[in-house]
Amino acid sequence: MSEPAWLDDIAWNGDGLVAAIAQDQASGRVLSQAWMNREALALTVAEGRAVYWSRSRAKIWRKGEESGHVQQVHEVRIDCDADAVLLLVTQVGGIACHTGRESCFYRVLRDGQWQDTDPVLKDPRTIYKQ
Amino acid sequence: MSEPAWLDDIAWNGDGLVAAIAQDQASGRVLSQAWMNREALALTVAEGRAVYWSRSRAKIWRKGEESGHVQQVHEVRIDCDADAVLLLVTQVGGIACHTGRESCFYRVLRDGQWQDTDPVLKDPRTIYKQ
Repeated sequence: MSEPAWLDDIAWNGDGLVAAIAQDQASGRVLSQAWMNREALALTVAEGRAVYWSRSRAKIWRKGEESGHVQQVHEVRIDCDADAVLLLVTQVGGIACHTGRESCFYRVLRDGQWQDTDPVLKDPRTIYKQ
Repeated sequence: MSEPAWLDDIAWNGDGLVAAIAQDQASGRVLSQAWMNREALALTVAEGRAVYWSRSRAKIWRKGEESGHVQQVHEVRIDCDADAVLLLVTQVGGIACHTGRESCFYRVLRDGQWQDTDPVLKDPRTIYKQ
């Protein structure tokens, strides 16, 4: 695949990555923050679904490949200094987080502690095949 | 200032930073993505306004200190792997971006190009004193 020219406008960091925020188009919730390399961002646009670079597994990660919780991408934005990407998505299954919650941002700082505020919608053991 | 214990729950990166996303509580727009070190996050919570670490200037940056476009912080969240912070804010002046736009994410990928979609609400030359 020849690389699209618009990839060169991204301010890739020293590891060749850019931060990617996914926001649910319907609810407006910020769902997740992950990382993309050039290939992941090119694949995201080509396939219309969020594809990230897994830093822990050091490989391309098509979000939802195991869980089915695909992020369908409607819009891709970059910020003013081009070092962050914002995806407007439809979150299939309504669950972005591997803990079974809608959003990965389910902990709120309250009374000097991080407190879980969002319900688990689905038991993670039933999301991922063992 | 003694450091609050909840700072230790953050997965600080190799540079001692965490990504911080600001979302407008009223409009739901994702406004900006910036970085915080321990001091910046502690100050954000203590002062109830977004305080970042400016990587380019290598110093604490109280957002709005020049422009008046302060981000008043209502809620601080972290994601499941604790390497991203989400702030729910009121954006004073309705302008988060130094270009005079509501959001820093004003460019959309369309027809293979990043296209400006959001209007400039205020001429940046009138925002920043020369």
